[in-house]
Amino acid sequence: MVPGVGPVVFRQLLQHFGSAEAVLGAAAAELVARGVRPAVARESGMLLTWGDDAYPSQLRQIHDPPPMLFVLGEITAADDLAVAVVGSRAASSYGRRMARLLASSFAGHGLTVVSGLARGVDAAAHAAALDAGGRTIAVLGSGIDVIYPVEHRALARAVSERGAVVSELLMGARPDAENFPSRNRLISGLSRGVIVVEAAERSGSLITANVAAEQGREVFAVPGPVGASSAGTHRLLREGAKLTESAGDVLEELCPRLLRVSAERPTFRPTPEEQRVLAAIGRETVHVDTVMLRCGLPANEVLPLLLALELKGVVEQLPGKFFSVRG
Amino acid sequence: MVPGVGPVVFRQLLQHFGSAEAVLGAAAAELVARGVRPAVARESGMLLTWGDDAYPSQLRQIHDPPPMLFVLGEITAADDLAVAVVGSRAASSYGRRMARLLASSFAGHGLTVVSGLARGVDAAAHAAALDAGGRTIAVLGSGIDVIYPVEHRALARAVSERGAVVSELLMGARPDAENFPSRNRLISGLSRGVIVVEAAERSGSLITANVAAEQGREVFAVPGPVGASSAGTHRLLREGAKLTESAGDVLEELCPRLLRVSAERPTFRPTPEEQRVLAAIGRETVHVDTVMLRCGLPANEVLPLLLALELKGVVEQLPGKFFSVRG
Repeated sequence: MVPGVGPVVFRQLLQHFGSAEAVLGAAAAELVARGVRPAVARESGMLLTWGDDAYPSQLRQIHDPPPMLFVLGEITAADDLAVAVVGSRAASSYGRRMARLLASSFAGHGLTVVSGLARGVDAAAHAAALDAGGRTIAVLGSGIDVIYPVEHRALARAVSERGAVVSELLMGARPDAENFPSRNRLISGLSRGVIVVEAAERSGSLITANVAAEQGREVFAVPGPVGASSAGTHRLLREGAKLTESAGDVLEELCPRLLRVSAERPTFRPTPEEQRVLAAIGRETVHVDTVMLRCGLPANEVLPLLLALELKGVVEQLPGKFFSVRG
Repeated sequence: MVPGVGPVVFRQLLQHFGSAEAVLGAAAAELVARGVRPAVARESGMLLTWGDDAYPSQLRQIHDPPPMLFVLGEITAADDLAVAVVGSRAASSYGRRMARLLASSFAGHGLTVVSGLARGVDAAAHAAALDAGGRTIAVLGSGIDVIYPVEHRALARAVSERGAVVSELLMGARPDAENFPSRNRLISGLSRGVIVVEAAERSGSLITANVAAEQGREVFAVPGPVGASSAGTHRLLREGAKLTESAGDVLEELCPRLLRVSAERPTFRPTPEEQRVLAAIGRETVHVDTVMLRCGLPANEVLPLLLALELKGVVEQLPGKFFSVRG
């Protein structure tokens, strides 16, 4: 079903490599040597089905997991801890800034950021996750070989190199409007929670939020100035979405599950920066300002470190922004 | 206890007018003729006690109503339908704009706007209520003759002419910090609901909101962009305050009570503008755009009229912004 691979080339490839899986796993140069056009060969797509171990475990749990998932790039075990960051295509600068802040912070905490590769919030979230050195997954409403909007081709390529571009649609499928509600269920399905950053009153993000709630995913919404841009997120907040000002709000809420997962990991080994913060606290109960003073680091470096240590169960936060190291 | 009225003048006044009430009710010119300095005489203060019919009925219901209420101006039966609009002294332009919009709209619906005459949100709310031709009450944390901040003297005078400046503190009392928590209970006590427009994490407005909840008043909070300015209102929203984007959100929530009150009033008599809207709807079910077209009025004039008619129970709103006149 790959465009550019007709019956003749298909038979040649199958005869040479032995199986369709082997073809899809082959290096681009090998494929080109067997008659595949270079542009097609570079799309190192992968097809996951329910039976595959690599099929995303979160997605397997929804009531209608796609039987086939086309993947450009790779879905790894790390993507089991994913959150979706979605919102308006016509996002304001405030909306894009919040998307960037949240996605960057999620990535910094090792969470994969899932979104829809759309303009506005989606693109800001993918890009910020990549900039922060994190993983990100883009779920398309078209085939994985049909990048829409076209100006996001470079972004899609970057996503596929540090995460995955995925779709349940056949290669070549156009980004038709009717594909998107179904696509949205994959965005939430791949994620532990869905954060809606900015959404107007009628917005696809609200559909994603509704589906997320049906799937048992936590729904988070970022407030904004009163006006059309945030009318949808404000509606979500009225309907019970968790008000979200920072990634910390989301992590706190999803924490029990996250901590359960990290408990299965090897013993805690602090990074040099974390070690510096731990030394600054010592055996005392210390105010955050004191931690900053002793570390000689500004708030925007100390606070994420403290949050990370708190989430790892190493540091405890007490009322009034005091911190102590757990015994 | 009035500064500038010593024992000698006091006895002269009492002998001439017969009672302290009569003195307070006397015209400024009469007082000046009896030796009171003009500036003091112009402060036509009034002292209300629990026993007075004019004592605000809402305030009577709280568990600690002040035994004495000093009033500059007048509290009328109309003030029984009051809402408080409070918020940050250091309000952003967004905060002040929202305060103005809400207060103006409340005033347009005949509600009295209560606030604390502070800088920022309070001042914006009082001024907007006055600009909209409505009533407003300023509750002070000092004596009614000690206007703080001083640059709000003109505003205080305007408030006293179209509402009231009130305090439970003796005349001459300074605006000491410890007065304000107690003052805040009067702001909420005089009101059916408290709308917090913009408040930082530690803010007097949050105290007002907590007291309001204890008094059984509904607490409303206006969302804003994520940041220090709205951290307090976002906390209130997390704790269950009603998310408020417009005066309509508040009126809808307080509506049952408001409608009960209006039911006791004489039969509905539409204003000429309301009549124009009713004629535009006729016996049909009509979209709001059609109403605008037929009235030849813009949205910002038609929508408040429709809302007013809806709250009066004359017009019914149907899904999709359709309206019909109730049988």
